[in-house]
Amino acid sequence: MSTTTDRPLRVALIGTGFMGRMHAHAWRTAHRFFDLPARPELTLLVGRDPERTAAAADTFGFAESAGDWRQAIERADIDVVDICTPGDTHAEIALAALAAGKHVLCEKPLANDVAEADLMVAAAERAGAEGVVSMCGFSYRRTPALALARRLVEDGRIGQVRHVRAQYLHAGSGTLGDIGAHSIDTAQWLTGDAIAGVSAIMRTFVPTRPVLDEQVGLGGRAHADAPRQTVTVDDAAAFTARFAGGAMGVFEATRLATGHRNSNRIEINGDRGSVAFDFRAMNELEFYDASDPAGEQGFRRIQANEPEHPYADAWWPAGHGLGYEHLFTHQIVDLVRAIAGGTPVSPSFADAARVQRVLAAVERSAAQDSLYVTVEGENP
Amino acid sequence: MSTTTDRPLRVALIGTGFMGRMHAHAWRTAHRFFDLPARPELTLLVGRDPERTAAAADTFGFAESAGDWRQAIERADIDVVDICTPGDTHAEIALAALAAGKHVLCEKPLANDVAEADLMVAAAERAGAEGVVSMCGFSYRRTPALALARRLVEDGRIGQVRHVRAQYLHAGSGTLGDIGAHSIDTAQWLTGDAIAGVSAIMRTFVPTRPVLDEQVGLGGRAHADAPRQTVTVDDAAAFTARFAGGAMGVFEATRLATGHRNSNRIEINGDRGSVAFDFRAMNELEFYDASDPAGEQGFRRIQANEPEHPYADAWWPAGHGLGYEHLFTHQIVDLVRAIAGGTPVSPSFADAARVQRVLAAVERSAAQDSLYVTVEGENP
Amino acid sequence: MSTTTDRPLRVALIGTGFMGRMHAHAWRTAHRFFDLPARPELTLLVGRDPERTAAAADTFGFAESAGDWRQAIERADIDVVDICTPGDTHAEIALAALAAGKHVLCEKPLANDVAEADLMVAAAERAGAEGVVSMCGFSYRRTPALALARRLVEDGRIGQVRHVRAQYLHAGSGTLGDIGAHSIDTAQWLTGDAIAGVSAIMRTFVPTRPVLDEQVGLGGRAHADAPRQTVTVDDAAAFTARFAGGAMGVFEATRLATGHRNSNRIEINGDRGSVAFDFRAMNELEFYDASDPAGEQGFRRIQANEPEHPYADAWWPAGHGLGYEHLFTHQIVDLVRAIAGGTPVSPSFADAARVQRVLAAVERSAAQDSLYVTVEGENP
Amino acid sequence: MSTTTDRPLRVALIGTGFMGRMHAHAWRTAHRFFDLPARPELTLLVGRDPERTAAAADTFGFAESAGDWRQAIERADIDVVDICTPGDTHAEIALAALAAGKHVLCEKPLANDVAEADLMVAAAERAGAEGVVSMCGFSYRRTPALALARRLVEDGRIGQVRHVRAQYLHAGSGTLGDIGAHSIDTAQWLTGDAIAGVSAIMRTFVPTRPVLDEQVGLGGRAHADAPRQTVTVDDAAAFTARFAGGAMGVFEATRLATGHRNSNRIEINGDRGSVAFDFRAMNELEFYDASDPAGEQGFRRIQANEPEHPYADAWWPAGHGLGYEHLFTHQIVDLVRAIAGGTPVSPSFADAARVQRVLAAVERSAAQDSLYVTVEGENP
Repeated sequence: MSTTTDRPLRVALIGTGFMGRMHAHAWRTAHRFFDLPARPELTLLVGRDPERTAAAADTFGFAESAGDWRQAIERADIDVVDICTPGDTHAEIALAALAAGKHVLCEKPLANDVAEADLMVAAAERAGAEGVVSMCGFSYRRTPALALARRLVEDGRIGQVRHVRAQYLHAGSGTLGDIGAHSIDTAQWLTGDAIAGVSAIMRTFVPTRPVLDEQVGLGGRAHADAPRQTVTVDDAAAFTARFAGGAMGVFEATRLATGHRNSNRIEINGDRGSVAFDFRAMNELEFYDASDPAGEQGFRRIQANEPEHPYADAWWPAGHGLGYEHLFTHQIVDLVRAIAGGTPVSPSFADAARVQRVLAAVERSAAQDSLYVTVEGENP
Repeated sequence: MSTTTDRPLRVALIGTGFMGRMHAHAWRTAHRFFDLPARPELTLLVGRDPERTAAAADTFGFAESAGDWRQAIERADIDVVDICTPGDTHAEIALAALAAGKHVLCEKPLANDVAEADLMVAAAERAGAEGVVSMCGFSYRRTPALALARRLVEDGRIGQVRHVRAQYLHAGSGTLGDIGAHSIDTAQWLTGDAIAGVSAIMRTFVPTRPVLDEQVGLGGRAHADAPRQTVTVDDAAAFTARFAGGAMGVFEATRLATGHRNSNRIEINGDRGSVAFDFRAMNELEFYDASDPAGEQGFRRIQANEPEHPYADAWWPAGHGLGYEHLFTHQIVDLVRAIAGGTPVSPSFADAARVQRVLAAVERSAAQDSLYVTVEGENP
Repeated sequence: MSTTTDRPLRVALIGTGFMGRMHAHAWRTAHRFFDLPARPELTLLVGRDPERTAAAADTFGFAESAGDWRQAIERADIDVVDICTPGDTHAEIALAALAAGKHVLCEKPLANDVAEADLMVAAAERAGAEGVVSMCGFSYRRTPALALARRLVEDGRIGQVRHVRAQYLHAGSGTLGDIGAHSIDTAQWLTGDAIAGVSAIMRTFVPTRPVLDEQVGLGGRAHADAPRQTVTVDDAAAFTARFAGGAMGVFEATRLATGHRNSNRIEINGDRGSVAFDFRAMNELEFYDASDPAGEQGFRRIQANEPEHPYADAWWPAGHGLGYEHLFTHQIVDLVRAIAGGTPVSPSFADAARVQRVLAAVERSAAQDSLYVTVEGENP
Repeated sequence: MSTTTDRPLRVALIGTGFMGRMHAHAWRTAHRFFDLPARPELTLLVGRDPERTAAAADTFGFAESAGDWRQAIERADIDVVDICTPGDTHAEIALAALAAGKHVLCEKPLANDVAEADLMVAAAERAGAEGVVSMCGFSYRRTPALALARRLVEDGRIGQVRHVRAQYLHAGSGTLGDIGAHSIDTAQWLTGDAIAGVSAIMRTFVPTRPVLDEQVGLGGRAHADAPRQTVTVDDAAAFTARFAGGAMGVFEATRLATGHRNSNRIEINGDRGSVAFDFRAMNELEFYDASDPAGEQGFRRIQANEPEHPYADAWWPAGHGLGYEHLFTHQIVDLVRAIAGGTPVSPSFADAARVQRVLAAVERSAAQDSLYVTVEGENP
């Protein structure tokens, strides 16, 4: 499948929740600021309730709507299927879309379990051989400050990585799969290394919790008299990790960190320097260069929205600050370029499956009194 | 003129530069996230170069383009004229648009001088009597954290205001009119008070500077071999101010603050509390409540993107961070609601003229060895 | 043994290194700012090298010096023995001092191992029955900001503790016993809870390192051509922990955190609030009170040197900042008051032994592939 | 007068308040950590009330006490007179001490007015020719982070200075002379430049205030029912300044900055870099080096207590934090070394008189509707 500038890139988006709205915004916005080889067209929005989906299509800017995701697969004019549904439906939709030769953007988590993820990876690789592009939505990779961190690490500026320290502190909702997966992906991507094994602890502090509707559910507060449901997921997880390259990691994810809204933090210490990031200051990267002269060393707070920084020159003048949704717009930019160029794009399904294997290892370790568990497929 | 939900709100945007691109984004985006009584339609983009304007119209999402702003005035189907041209053209365009019964959004600075501004205020008031809405683009007012600050001040939470401390520190470009005006507007709006007089100093440190193109010009860097032009504007200005209500102000604006990208800061101390804001952390407001128990007092860092905060519930879950462009989207939201409701909206042309009078007083004081100068129309 | 204001409290200090110098300063300074029931007298300094010890006695302000710690025990006029020698000598000296009826202040780590620590605890309890006071030098407890944190936790202001997150990040020297012990003591003291079990990882990244002299050794840098020695201690350790009361802990201590000088941090999340501390800003405590009104919630940065704060009213006016050595002066203040009052003082030898048991559990877990290990004497 | 290591340096301290206590601590402590050519001896404490002074002498560690400062002048064995009395007594005591050949350390403000200050400068110069050392206590110069800033500025690391921005924000007490003088001295010293002229505003917001005793008076709070006195000093002052070397300054000092305890801040922007300091983080200096590679530029947070930093190697290992009183100990170190070496030491009385001339100019400008006023003796 090829895409030229002569024809638009027709997108079907599956899912009308918070994440669907975000993706729609990104598809609408990318070509307004970036020079893209193909212009996305919001062709079809798919949701379960036909009436609400039609209204959402109008709000989100889609030309048409449908009540069954299979319609997106069947339509020959659809180029891209963007999957923003709950995680347990990802595999079925993605496999069908790939089989139909559609490019696929799939929100994280990639799949229900490692087995499913492996099927998706295999399908993505087969389709990839035919020029079909697939990508998993670990959007934090597209934060300019983190992309700058990756560049510094890749260029050897912090030397041999020894410590990875990642926290995803939240008060409200989220689980290991929801928020911890971000930390795992970011850590593996930033270091260019893989987590080889983990020792984990998981906790459920609150056995029941109020039912929240989807919109409020992320970071919101519930009314005191809301109905309560039994909690089947963990409130918090922490694990130590060994990376294949020798680094040591400490990870923590919780939805009971009172006072934290979305504290997604990561710090990496190498033998020549360090980088540190906190999503609360998402436009900044802290960088310590041990080769600075003695007496002048210190963490440097880089405002990562200058022309030299990844993605930043498409936007406002330096210092004017990007927000959360820019990560998604950048994701579309990279995806569209990959589709047009017939090149792979990260995070691939394989990258996402690797995250899933780490999550699986975390769960296995937690179930065995924190015993060290090797991540499947990685050398310890 | 009335607007109903049955018909769109047709917008003509004059200006294709950085600010035009930003406004276009806001017009495109507002109804995708906010419930608006009328849906904006990007009807006409006006620029000087027909070919480049046609290309920009395509990129920005406008249906048509034109080379003369008069076409926007003459077209009966245009409801709103949005003026993003250089400041010395604002008066002419705005006066014509208001005379033609168009709603007007005019970027700051409102006008070349106070006389021009007064003409525009008069025209806006005449048109306002007919239901025509006019607004000046001091967009920082729409930062949720600053809107929260305004609410706290208005509710008496910091008591009687004594100190206003505003800095706009930059390294690159900008002038008193460009960046200092923001601080003046923000200070007067946050306090609900007016600057009655000023004592000022202005400096031009660098007599020539490289020619920058428009895009790079805000916050960018020029090549060492760029041609140089004589500087006709000030590099830096500082002034002390007395507010009508008794508070004391200290203002500084400079484009030679090495290391600063866009440090737009303001702090207000009252006798019962304080608020402090730095645009570098634009999603946060620092609030000190002197009524907190002794021993527990401290500046509270409020992440101002929770459902309770102004504008915030239309966006992402708490803690996910808005960026610079959201201020402009919020501006459109308030403007569209005012147009549909036939109600006035701030900042009015009169608000903007008040800023211009302060700027004029600053210049007069600086020219008279910093002698205290009363702001025209304010009681000292 | 009793102490009245009529007679001074005669102190023998064992150890002339960095920590001895610090303790001497504290003994000299405490009664100059605090109202003490007995005035310390710097009577005897003990070191191995007689000549250097005599010089140090002069510098530190001691009346006499000696080359053998047994002289301190034997002298009837010595009231307090302050042990600042390397950890492997603590037990022998402390046991002898307690047997001789001396009050004992012993630097951390209390002992070489748990067995030794238990002997010391038993001796301290026996001596305590006779009015002899013993204390272990976990000085961070005397940071006013941390003492304020303890007060808030104790008063139920953060509710039921769920998360403890402690990091001691360093670049230079230190081991789990040196720096991790601080985090463990602080965490158990702040929560008023005990670590019941751990799952740990320990790493030695650098197999040899330059020989440093004692003074430079803490936080210093060595010359490139310094002789190298084989490393027998860990460079880094991390562990997850379960507290007896149900909270979950994540601990990390490393001396390879490039860019960090002495980042001793701890955060505790309860169901009603949170406290957070970073020694880099040692005069501040961050406090989040979930009962603040919605929309006004945020971490409050309390400058903990106001008259209401622990220890602070003896010092400078609010906001003038204390330094590291004040912790030691506060330690002496509390010790002298306990001695004069015949009351126990914390951290007791039993508190310190509890830290040692956690350290031992950490080592056992690390040696067993991170398997969860119960802390001896605690119910899991 | 000469001082050798064979004999101590005998100190008479005049004043038993907060500042006297601080100086006593510094005199007692300096030689315990620094290698000094002469050892200070706390010989005589002078206060008005004989009984209370005797008690203070005991607490502060002085051998004797007296009720009249003339006794300190008359005693042949006194080497140094340290003046910590209220400002209106400084001139008389200092002139007498200098005439008697005593070295003099005089707290700021140097004198009541410029005329008095000039007399003191002349006397200090005459005495200086005989080897008598005089110094004024602008202690903030001895903050390691600020001393590092001075070194960076002096070495040309921030290039040509353009902006000086100083704030002394307080809530409690203090006046322009008390707290603004610090900012003026720091600014002139850091830049190595002199303020040539000012335009000022001064305000008294609160016409009466509770009577506070001396101890509480600095930064404390009064009881609601304390007696009230009429305020004869300003609550707040702000001024713009032109430096002789071309830089522009903005200064603000207030005791009504609700929420601020002791926010003593200064930032300097040059054409090659910037330095920024906030006393709340007194161990840190922010340094921006415009010669860092593009894309890696940012303010670097230097923890200024490493061996390379001024004064720092006498103290604790890097990262352990100094407090307010260390500035005073450093002051004694430099003073003792100057006395022993027969060399001048800064801040000289002339430096302090220069601050006083700026203060006088500020008052004259404020009295003339902020008209620009040239600082006496400086070329505008």
